[in-house]
Amino acid sequence: MILRGDIFVGKKLPSTRKLAQSLGIDRSTVLLAYNVLYSEGFIEAHVGRGTIVVDSSNSDSGNVPILTSLRWDDFFTSCNFSAYDSVLQKNNDLFDQKEIISLAGGDPAPDMIPAGEIEAIIARLCRDDLYSVLKASACQGILPLRERLASDMIGQGATVSPEEIIITSGAVQAISLLSRTLLDPGDVVVVEKPTFYAALQIFKAAQANIVGVPTDVQGMRIDALERVFSVHKPKFIYTMPTYQNPSGAVLSLERRKALLNLAYRYQVGIIEEDPCSKIFFGQAPPPSLKSMDKSAAVIYVGTMSKMLFPGFRIGWIMCTRRMAKRLAMVRQYEDMHPNTLGQHVFLEFMKTDHFERHLSAIRKIIGRRRDAMISTLTRTCAPALTWDKPEGGFYLWCRLKAGLRSNEISEELLKKNVATVPGTAFFIRPEEGMDRLRLAFSYETEERMEQGIQVLGKTAKSLIARKKVKPDVSEIEIGKIL
Amino acid sequence: MILRGDIFVGKKLPSTRKLAQSLGIDRSTVLLAYNVLYSEGFIEAHVGRGTIVVDSSNSDSGNVPILTSLRWDDFFTSCNFSAYDSVLQKNNDLFDQKEIISLAGGDPAPDMIPAGEIEAIIARLCRDDLYSVLKASACQGILPLRERLASDMIGQGATVSPEEIIITSGAVQAISLLSRTLLDPGDVVVVEKPTFYAALQIFKAAQANIVGVPTDVQGMRIDALERVFSVHKPKFIYTMPTYQNPSGAVLSLERRKALLNLAYRYQVGIIEEDPCSKIFFGQAPPPSLKSMDKSAAVIYVGTMSKMLFPGFRIGWIMCTRRMAKRLAMVRQYEDMHPNTLGQHVFLEFMKTDHFERHLSAIRKIIGRRRDAMISTLTRTCAPALTWDKPEGGFYLWCRLKAGLRSNEISEELLKKNVATVPGTAFFIRPEEGMDRLRLAFSYETEERMEQGIQVLGKTAKSLIARKKVKPDVSEIEIGKIL
Repeated sequence: MILRGDIFVGKKLPSTRKLAQSLGIDRSTVLLAYNVLYSEGFIEAHVGRGTIVVDSSNSDSGNVPILTSLRWDDFFTSCNFSAYDSVLQKNNDLFDQKEIISLAGGDPAPDMIPAGEIEAIIARLCRDDLYSVLKASACQGILPLRERLASDMIGQGATVSPEEIIITSGAVQAISLLSRTLLDPGDVVVVEKPTFYAALQIFKAAQANIVGVPTDVQGMRIDALERVFSVHKPKFIYTMPTYQNPSGAVLSLERRKALLNLAYRYQVGIIEEDPCSKIFFGQAPPPSLKSMDKSAAVIYVGTMSKMLFPGFRIGWIMCTRRMAKRLAMVRQYEDMHPNTLGQHVFLEFMKTDHFERHLSAIRKIIGRRRDAMISTLTRTCAPALTWDKPEGGFYLWCRLKAGLRSNEISEELLKKNVATVPGTAFFIRPEEGMDRLRLAFSYETEERMEQGIQVLGKTAKSLIARKKVKPDVSEIEIGKIL
Repeated sequence: MILRGDIFVGKKLPSTRKLAQSLGIDRSTVLLAYNVLYSEGFIEAHVGRGTIVVDSSNSDSGNVPILTSLRWDDFFTSCNFSAYDSVLQKNNDLFDQKEIISLAGGDPAPDMIPAGEIEAIIARLCRDDLYSVLKASACQGILPLRERLASDMIGQGATVSPEEIIITSGAVQAISLLSRTLLDPGDVVVVEKPTFYAALQIFKAAQANIVGVPTDVQGMRIDALERVFSVHKPKFIYTMPTYQNPSGAVLSLERRKALLNLAYRYQVGIIEEDPCSKIFFGQAPPPSLKSMDKSAAVIYVGTMSKMLFPGFRIGWIMCTRRMAKRLAMVRQYEDMHPNTLGQHVFLEFMKTDHFERHLSAIRKIIGRRRDAMISTLTRTCAPALTWDKPEGGFYLWCRLKAGLRSNEISEELLKKNVATVPGTAFFIRPEEGMDRLRLAFSYETEERMEQGIQVLGKTAKSLIARKKVKPDVSEIEIGKIL
């Protein structure tokens, strides 16, 4: 039409949106056409003035057109992350803001860092051989750290060699690498109900079919697991048998044996994640599945993030030698290798006798905080919240009563600068966690924790009042609401 | 048969392999059956003695059976990593062995580390606020580093804000995250021929259709790219326009303009990876695509690994604000966040005036090594190898003459403790790189580099002799061999 003269020089073209509407075509097609017209010198575009037909004989096609910004959003892959991520995402956005009282993340607090020892180790590593701690390391991680981790695990009765270990950038990367190495779309994965939300998200992103097995205070119910095996042939079972995140449950010794027997019988592997079996408040927990396993059925995932600090992102996988090789190959195209200094610092710390002393110190601190949280909760939040007392780990897994809904209360609390994690994050079907709330007792001082819990108590009361539910609800079990 | 008494107690059962063969069924079926028999107490298995029928009334089904190790290998996903990976894998296995002369990786050498400054910065960070550098950081990376990177890029003429940046665990993770965020199976990605092998592997793992565009000394050929657009609608173009890995080519200013124009016209985004535009030996290269882009078409990937050191795994992506959010969400389930201390160390180093001084120092060192490599090659390897002289970066991209094949010579060299990267790694169809070899001149001292090149010269000569190809081959262009 421009060439024919039906549209004159100086004429303003309709907006891409309007033209697309009037022609009943996609806007991107109009954009493409306008861009071609632009690049061939027929039109010009100016912010605020629109798109104008120009004299094409004057056009300078060497110029960079600024017709429209590329709409990258249209290019995003379809995303499996669920809506309940929104609270986690908000928690992450507010990360590091001092006014937030965080009962969300299970992070070690400042008073749990063995500051003197770590500072001395870092200084010594830098002084002795700076280049060694700044250069690249092998994809599988540095050998001396793998040797040290192997010998520790052997000390616990397990069979493992340094070649069967890969150092990862934290436990989440461990799960993610295992998922990439083992899961094809449609594969079945068995998890506990509830389970660690990051694992859920990773398995979902791998397009696995996730089957949840009910749990009780002794962890995964093996009878229910066996029923799963009668229907499905899972690729693996993902479990956190000791101080589970979020429930705090410990799989009993009997069930550990039964779980291994089932795994052998059905030839199904187990991924055992074990972030905090060393953070116990009374007696030590049963041995790890890995140390009871005589048949290479258990892949063990460990991390330094809970025992020391998370900033270095150092975790590890103990598996078969061939799988370790395979994982290293996959990770070469993920992040190449775990950061070198972090590996050396943890190695040096493990080699000193500070480690056991440090563990025993933080057990005391975290145990005291658990007690403080429970006592404040009892005073200010019962009977709207109930819980089981965990014997280790970082979390209190609360039941919400009186029709309280976890997403609602979490969002309300965040407005009042208290961060928590709604129970919905820990279930395949989020609605199953609507009456649950995870509170971390590791991070805040007892004073700030108490402040946070008081806000929680008030918020719960006002939400209950707003719902006009009778306040005397101690005997009412609401259960699933959706 | 056991219950009926056809098979007596004490009888040794056939091996699973034999029984599977004789029945014409899969061995895993036999294993499963044996496991069921085991768990129900009918048989026992002992290493070296085989599988024996036992008195089932005595069986203790609570025991852990050790019939067979779980065969995890059967569970691996199908893997897209190619055979030519084997040399890279061997290089990785030999990582860190002092006797290897490494002409493989483009790593900064010990004499390029600003040791005093880095040690002082680490010591100060630990002293001032140890907890801050050991704790977790936000998924998007610490804000002050993003602010600093933004202001540097703005200084180069680009438009970018801290919200449009995500700190990654190195440039490889950057490509990997972008791939996960943008690529669905079957999407078309455009790369240079040759291109960075890690990017190739990442796009292959994403099941993309990778289209290669020929290059010359001025980088990607825009005429060829336009022909690609006439057939395909790519999701993005991946390019390293400045001192490309492996070719060392620099995309000319004219071609940069033309590339951006094409991208705007066809509404195709560009991922610009820029690890070493600051490592130049003569005059500075043309501006980055990102700084010329006025339409958000360019995603920029940077890294500290080449400018400073790789051990901390710190890189970054500059993109749109919404994409940065999306990438942060994806990375939350990859490795949570980049290591915290590394981010702070780089931030502090960028804030001092050491950075420019450091860059100018390493330009001189690496430039000298390039010259040393070229002069030794000229003496010992010409005319069997030829090359173009790179004006920046870390690599010499050699042509192999006289029928020399890159995989063969790389493997031969590794046996003699000299690591190189065969050209096959840099092509979608590996055979296209059979007459190419990448040599890194950054890492080894001039003396060791000379040793390595001499071994290369001898190896080339003996391979040529073995092939009985005439030694006078200066005019012969062998080209593709396969």
